[in-house]
Amino acid sequence: MTPGNRPKDAETPWWERFARRLEALPAPDGQALAAARARQDTLTKPPGALGRLEDMACWLAAWQGRETPSLDHVSALVFAGNHGVTAQGVSSYPASVTAQMVENFERGGAAICQLCDAYGAELSVIPLDLDSPTADMTLEPAMSSEACEEGLARGAAAVPDQTDLLLLGEMGIGNTTAAAALACALLGGEAKDWTGPGAGLDEPGVVRKAEIVARALALHLDACTHPFEALRRLGGRELAALTGAILEARARRVPVLLDGYVCCAAALVLEKAAAGALDHCLASHLSAEPAHGRLLSALGKQPIVDLGMRLGEGTGAAVALGILRGALAAHNGMATFAEAGVDNRE
Amino acid sequence: MTPGNRPKDAETPWWERFARRLEALPAPDGQALAAARARQDTLTKPPGALGRLEDMACWLAAWQGRETPSLDHVSALVFAGNHGVTAQGVSSYPASVTAQMVENFERGGAAICQLCDAYGAELSVIPLDLDSPTADMTLEPAMSSEACEEGLARGAAAVPDQTDLLLLGEMGIGNTTAAAALACALLGGEAKDWTGPGAGLDEPGVVRKAEIVARALALHLDACTHPFEALRRLGGRELAALTGAILEARARRVPVLLDGYVCCAAALVLEKAAAGALDHCLASHLSAEPAHGRLLSALGKQPIVDLGMRLGEGTGAAVALGILRGALAAHNGMATFAEAGVDNRE
Repeated sequence: MTPGNRPKDAETPWWERFARRLEALPAPDGQALAAARARQDTLTKPPGALGRLEDMACWLAAWQGRETPSLDHVSALVFAGNHGVTAQGVSSYPASVTAQMVENFERGGAAICQLCDAYGAELSVIPLDLDSPTADMTLEPAMSSEACEEGLARGAAAVPDQTDLLLLGEMGIGNTTAAAALACALLGGEAKDWTGPGAGLDEPGVVRKAEIVARALALHLDACTHPFEALRRLGGRELAALTGAILEARARRVPVLLDGYVCCAAALVLEKAAAGALDHCLASHLSAEPAHGRLLSALGKQPIVDLGMRLGEGTGAAVALGILRGALAAHNGMATFAEAGVDNRE
Repeated sequence: MTPGNRPKDAETPWWERFARRLEALPAPDGQALAAARARQDTLTKPPGALGRLEDMACWLAAWQGRETPSLDHVSALVFAGNHGVTAQGVSSYPASVTAQMVENFERGGAAICQLCDAYGAELSVIPLDLDSPTADMTLEPAMSSEACEEGLARGAAAVPDQTDLLLLGEMGIGNTTAAAALACALLGGEAKDWTGPGAGLDEPGVVRKAEIVARALALHLDACTHPFEALRRLGGRELAALTGAILEARARRVPVLLDGYVCCAAALVLEKAAAGALDHCLASHLSAEPAHGRLLSALGKQPIVDLGMRLGEGTGAAVALGILRGALAAHNGMATFAEAGVDNRE
């Protein structure tokens, strides 16, 4: 490699091409949205009486670019990664569980498998170098720029060619620690504001976990000059893959259901890099992880359900898919006042 | 009829036999509940990580009396009635819409039809003497005791022989006015606390509607010596049928998903007559009708979803069924830690 070949190498940050993609994001289809809204107002119900079901159907219409959208091909992507920070004792489960749960996903035994079956989504599980955990972020950046780029790229590559809706989830012992550090780096506040029990730490465990997050932030915060750099230093492979998948989906106007705390922290990278980058995403649920509500507020997203879930895997997104199916059935299948011969308002 | 045949007629109130039924309500199956709870804690997830999905599956188990419940036969009953009080101008839709919507239900064009299809419930629509509206409650009791008893009986008779879960809904122009009067009579406060826009009244319309509710209460409140008498004087045929169906379901230990404001007002009759009478019921959703939240609090029920819906017809119950299907799929289908070979907590 000579300076003539890549003259700006020294100054060009690794995330440059991702940041550039964010400058040219496609908008939703305004015509399809207007047609869907108009359709809703002709259906045999008082206008607005189906509440958020109407909004969800219209959101699908806007991103799919058709008045009557479809959910024939729904893909659920679950990315799995391992985290060096587990050496610090941040989880009540051993790191071995990540790979074991991936096997459980593949055999159909996990919650997300059952929920995808129940709600009609095709599940793909993408383990990301589980035998090479990221580095311990309290000591060094979690990922090299190459590893982070690869994570982003693998996420993008996992988005299927033909998909009406994308559900995103993750599995990774230790990844709520990474998510807490990332959210804190990008949104401010103290480590403890963003740290919770994850899979089930007790109170002293959460205090210790917050101290570990604070240590990672003390090491990296000044160097987090861009959201993608925060992702590299504090995130993990599955978080990078989620970020990459969300960006790819937006570029292709594929609507996305975000899952819980970890998924939303990965999404936050895009929103902080370019406000509005998540317009194609809905927040599926409010997780029981205490900081998830604050994170959703920062994203400007209102969750579809609040069921005290805190499992990850995309399970919240799957439940929200169940509601979208009803929203779509009403939108596409109801009779209009004219068709049904029902008198409209006096 | 001689005094010898029915000696206590003069003193025995018409609701006596319904009140008596409430004295001997079956409890849920504690053994099935304990088994379901124990099962949840063996599944491959941190204990409690599926939040309310776990509670819902265990609730089904308790009322169906089996560790792994089923939702093979789900029935949605929609009762329709007409209300004399519509003569006072309490709705933005003409009373003719009740019968027209019943036809729309029967042809599959209404929201509830599409949602029952989407979530796998068999819909039955039960029109109750639509061409004989109840009396105008601002002038006289809405129903005779015979009419109210018949409504209760028709509701009970509509509960199918074999059903794993019952969804309840209603249709009736003017019936949020009846529901408001009933809720106010049974829970106190002022008419305006319980009165809302229903299918879409504007603000002056709601003020007028509250005055009409207040007028009905002024006429009947002193005579509402029992919740069933309040139902007769202020309710309507579809409300009586809902009350009857809920009571019948309880007697047969059939779990029930309540719908919105009108359905919950009908359920309130039982709860006020016998605390705990609604233990077999879950509140599907928080409706956009402003007083529904207060009514749910009085029932001690936390809604499953809050989607700004305000359509009635059982549509909220149908959406909640969608969530129950996921809860059940996880409960019945997930692998245990032992089956999956996943390490449990350290």
